[in-house]
Amino acid sequence: MNATHNLTRASLQTLDTPAAIIDVPRMQHNIARMQSRMDALGVRFRPHVKTSKCVEVAHAQIAAGATGVTVSTLKEAARFFDDGVTDILYAVGMVASKLPAALALRRRGCDLKIITDSVASAQAIVAFGAEYGETFDVWIEIDTDGHRSGIRPEEDALLDVARVLHDGGARLGGVMTHAGSSYDFDTPEALAAIAEQERAGCVLAATRLRDAGLPCAVVSVGSTPTALAAKHLEGVTEVRAGVYVFFDLVMHNVGVCATDELALSVLTTVIGHQAEKGWAIVDAGWMAMSRDRGTQKQKRDFGYGQICRVDGSLVPGYVLSGANQEHGILSREGEPDPDIVARFPIGTLLRILPNHACATGAQFPEYHAIDPERGLATWPRLHGW
Amino acid sequence: MNATHNLTRASLQTLDTPAAIIDVPRMQHNIARMQSRMDALGVRFRPHVKTSKCVEVAHAQIAAGATGVTVSTLKEAARFFDDGVTDILYAVGMVASKLPAALALRRRGCDLKIITDSVASAQAIVAFGAEYGETFDVWIEIDTDGHRSGIRPEEDALLDVARVLHDGGARLGGVMTHAGSSYDFDTPEALAAIAEQERAGCVLAATRLRDAGLPCAVVSVGSTPTALAAKHLEGVTEVRAGVYVFFDLVMHNVGVCATDELALSVLTTVIGHQAEKGWAIVDAGWMAMSRDRGTQKQKRDFGYGQICRVDGSLVPGYVLSGANQEHGILSREGEPDPDIVARFPIGTLLRILPNHACATGAQFPEYHAIDPERGLATWPRLHGW
Repeated sequence: MNATHNLTRASLQTLDTPAAIIDVPRMQHNIARMQSRMDALGVRFRPHVKTSKCVEVAHAQIAAGATGVTVSTLKEAARFFDDGVTDILYAVGMVASKLPAALALRRRGCDLKIITDSVASAQAIVAFGAEYGETFDVWIEIDTDGHRSGIRPEEDALLDVARVLHDGGARLGGVMTHAGSSYDFDTPEALAAIAEQERAGCVLAATRLRDAGLPCAVVSVGSTPTALAAKHLEGVTEVRAGVYVFFDLVMHNVGVCATDELALSVLTTVIGHQAEKGWAIVDAGWMAMSRDRGTQKQKRDFGYGQICRVDGSLVPGYVLSGANQEHGILSREGEPDPDIVARFPIGTLLRILPNHACATGAQFPEYHAIDPERGLATWPRLHGW
Repeated sequence: MNATHNLTRASLQTLDTPAAIIDVPRMQHNIARMQSRMDALGVRFRPHVKTSKCVEVAHAQIAAGATGVTVSTLKEAARFFDDGVTDILYAVGMVASKLPAALALRRRGCDLKIITDSVASAQAIVAFGAEYGETFDVWIEIDTDGHRSGIRPEEDALLDVARVLHDGGARLGGVMTHAGSSYDFDTPEALAAIAEQERAGCVLAATRLRDAGLPCAVVSVGSTPTALAAKHLEGVTEVRAGVYVFFDLVMHNVGVCATDELALSVLTTVIGHQAEKGWAIVDAGWMAMSRDRGTQKQKRDFGYGQICRVDGSLVPGYVLSGANQEHGILSREGEPDPDIVARFPIGTLLRILPNHACATGAQFPEYHAIDPERGLATWPRLHGW
């Protein structure tokens, strides 16, 4: 353990701060944990790569058994396809203006799936497909928790959209849902209940399609909390989840991970103090951490992040309590620390666990992946659209 | 006006969404407004380019009369120096680990100024300077509002730090402060008061240095609200401000700009609806808008942004009320709009004014600058550290 810690410290001291650090053993643990759970539940697993936007991370997920990936932008789809991933679900509702980019990917051999939740978009897809002689593989987005997009499983519109697609020459590939409201719960019972609601709603939608004589091969559900809380996944064919690969403080508050499973942190340097206030000033502000304050309304508010030593071990009770663009304010929760200057002298390297890994990762052009066996590697991260 | 609007609409329809749009005439108006105010107040102006991180924007600021730039990272300093700007202030406290990068810039001919607010950092600077035979130009950071970093003008530490620098062979260039708490006010009287507090505190620090026989050529103050609210700037030699170049909803709530002065917006496409809830779903989520919710605690909460038509005109009462990574929820403030589907059909292009221009701009690799006279141009934006 000490040898590992010394290696970590030595490697990280070579980096400019702020920097995004991936703890590779923790990431591999998280990947193995999720994949083994999916294997036990008898479903395929399609990780959402919007969390990492990093091919090295996706490789690790696929090596562990993942079947294809989920993306949040067509730029991600192109990047991961260039990297050899062919089975890709673009999980944001398709609109006419994005069909040329989707067509281009399919023409290059990408097995891209697209989604819709409206007759208007379904019509645009089939009209475009007819014009260009392309059979798009389209899944219908189902709303199982009122969280965002999708058609409710019992709505008439489900069959309307399905028939537009099926009759219009698209391949009606299946149904998909995302119970994003699972982030709002923090007990095993509530998480199991929302997981079951997500499963049952999506399976109901599939059943309605099949009962109407329509095809529905895929039943795709998921979010990190529901994937980890589901008691069974009867009728489901695949699960999607993203943030589990790194986890974060929001997920810790939800109750699906321990703090020592958090694989993403921000390396920072102490650059000053306001001793009377008990503040250390660090060079990770909101530009590094992101403006995400997802723990603010949860059972424990970590400010802009939890402070750790450079070896990754927690400094309990110390958080990033404030942030400007390139300045973070590190302080003790509750009473100010009168010994803040001695505890964290200028130049001290620290690591900060983020509220929301997807948002924090997005602030960085690359990750620094640290693996005790292989040392430090730079993994680029996709940016923009 | 109609010709301009038609040109805007036609140009923006060629872009993929989401996209960051700069309204060039509004930006030029904001630049001229600030520069003419600084000229009238008799001070030099050093814009903080952390807002745009874009050389085309900095060019416009310098063309209008700005003297040098302020940066928030050494990567910005290197980029703007490569672009021909030599007078650069790095306005984040220097630490030993960043001195080699600062030295490299100075050795290449960059007139880089650095700052400190502690004896420990000042010692590190002079020791490094002595080792490498470099006379660093160092300003002392003054705390005039308890907001973040700096030495209070009346503290003994001010003279301690100054003597370490001066006696150690650094060039003691001056003092600088940033009254960031000006963002917390929203009346002309309160803004004028904090501007005067910022000015008087920084001038006091300069006076104390000079009274002690130490040099202090530069007295640098500023934030967008205080720069626009100051009644006079006696004793000040230069002002810094950043966000004024684009303005944003936070600044609108502070009271220093009208909504039709906001020069940065996010172009988005309507991709779906939840009609019963009065929601339109757009493809600008928090990845595009950033997680900044800066208007949440101000007099008017705009959610994740104010909705505009594609020509930039406001749609009063409609905001981005919620955001996931690549999904935004557009709704009417107050009662749900029963006509949301007809009002914003799928495929509709809209623009969203952001809470915080610095945070929203950071989400994009480039801006699309629209100028009625020159059409559409792509302006790259710096990302990372």
